Amino acid sequence: MTTGPIGVFDSGVGGLTVLRALRERLPDSDFVYLGDTARLPYGTKSPDTVRRYALQAAEALRTYHVRALVVACNTASGVALDVLTARWPEVPVVGVVEPGAAAACARSPRGEIAVIGTESTIRGGAYQAAIARLRPEARVRARACSVFVALAEEGWFDTAAAEAVARAYLGDWLEGPEPPDALVLGCTHFPVLAGLIRRIAGDELELVDSASTTAAVLADRLEAGGAAAPSGRAAAGGVRFLATDGAERFARVGGRFLGTELDPAAIEIVDL
Amino acid sequence: MTTGPIGVFDSGVGGLTVLRALRERLPDSDFVYLGDTARLPYGTKSPDTVRRYALQAAEALRTYHVRALVVACNTASGVALDVLTARWPEVPVVGVVEPGAAAACARSPRGEIAVIGTESTIRGGAYQAAIARLRPEARVRARACSVFVALAEEGWFDTAAAEAVARAYLGDWLEGPEPPDALVLGCTHFPVLAGLIRRIAGDELELVDSASTTAAVLADRLEAGGAAAPSGRAAAGGVRFLATDGAERFARVGGRFLGTELDPAAIEIVDL
Repeated sequence: MTTGPIGVFDSGVGGLTVLRALRERLPDSDFVYLGDTARLPYGTKSPDTVRRYALQAAEALRTYHVRALVVACNTASGVALDVLTARWPEVPVVGVVEPGAAAACARSPRGEIAVIGTESTIRGGAYQAAIARLRPEARVRARACSVFVALAEEGWFDTAAAEAVARAYLGDWLEGPEPPDALVLGCTHFPVLAGLIRRIAGDELELVDSASTTAAVLADRLEAGGAAAPSGRAAAGGVRFLATDGAERFARVGGRFLGTELDPAAIEIVDL
Repeated sequence: MTTGPIGVFDSGVGGLTVLRALRERLPDSDFVYLGDTARLPYGTKSPDTVRRYALQAAEALRTYHVRALVVACNTASGVALDVLTARWPEVPVVGVVEPGAAAACARSPRGEIAVIGTESTIRGGAYQAAIARLRPEARVRARACSVFVALAEEGWFDTAAAEAVARAYLGDWLEGPEPPDALVLGCTHFPVLAGLIRRIAGDELELVDSASTTAAVLADRLEAGGAAAPSGRAAAGGVRFLATDGAERFARVGGRFLGTELDPAAIEIVDL
């Protein structure tokens, strides 16, 4: 279990921001990324259904002999980590919620923590619960920022329209009497908007990107298990892309999140 | 078949703008609205899958003895009208694409027609094809405006952020040398943004709302068939709401499109 690729799954292409962070942190690893594009969004589905989908996705990734499993989807991280860990105790399973919450708690000077995410993530309350466990005295505010998802998919990372939307969502917090000192980007789509948010929020606000914190947590887990780098063969740093539907859109929109061009012909369509 | 309710189906809550227009045009009719919220979005699914979903939805509505079927979903209108009509020839079946295209052709003075919609609607090309059939010499331009969907669901109908997004999508057309003289709002979510678009586009541009044109076409079809108003009993004007998932979100977001408050307890959850 120390030589295989790292498996990453998400409901769609947003998790490619997590893959990007993983590749930066673990450049010698191979990866298999699975986006369940035929069944997205997970956020509107029941927890039982999301657990079933997550188990199917993990099962598919296991056929590639993965040495670790990263659940890049916030919704699946919130409801399926337990069942995945119970089913495959020999493989490290890492989600995006706990690492993001832990980083926010560690990096917030005054304990004024804000969380933004999709509607389902915010209403599900997984980030809020994790922060409350780790730093009970923190003051947590949370807001669904659904339009950010559309902006990110459109590739509008720092346009006038994107700025107007960001001010609409964050203005009252930033200009209020007790502004947050840490902001969790609690959706895989949001890291691409970090530059814009930084610009309107100023340098005082710690931006906590679940993607990079998840990559750091996985690297620690692999190192602790003696599997930080693949051994026994040349390191490759390659990625295999799997999707359940829509190779063309996966490549076109996914490329924005991954930060490199993707060839639709390189996306394998699989059934779960 | 002249006394039952009118069946309306959509992949989600956007079709409630069509229901709203239908109720205004046919205030004495009863309606059954079905939103297939568990399986949205349809736009990313294959035509075969969308046809299968549409047949299932229509089958469910037929158990209410509907006297007409309105396909409020642009994607399903583009691929499933033929199979629905073939399966139930005795019931008028009306989609949103043909009425919208016909109205644009009739109301464009110079034949400079623009179409906006979701990514799948624009890429599918159903509006463009219908306009080309009806008015071959028209110049058609089309653009996916995905962020509009998120704005509409967020309830941001005429905010500064919504205006910035509208200018980003439409600015080059409106300020170009040959601006469009008719704009098809080719997505069920867009009628709620009509006021904003009107404000930035000015009075020269004809805004063609598929919802109201579809309602007019259905009224004509019913009148031609002698079934414009339910007969043989008191007119009620009531609506039954069915959804395949998420009554709370259906009521909360759907109320914005319907223009009236919706009670989550009034949404029946059904399996298709």
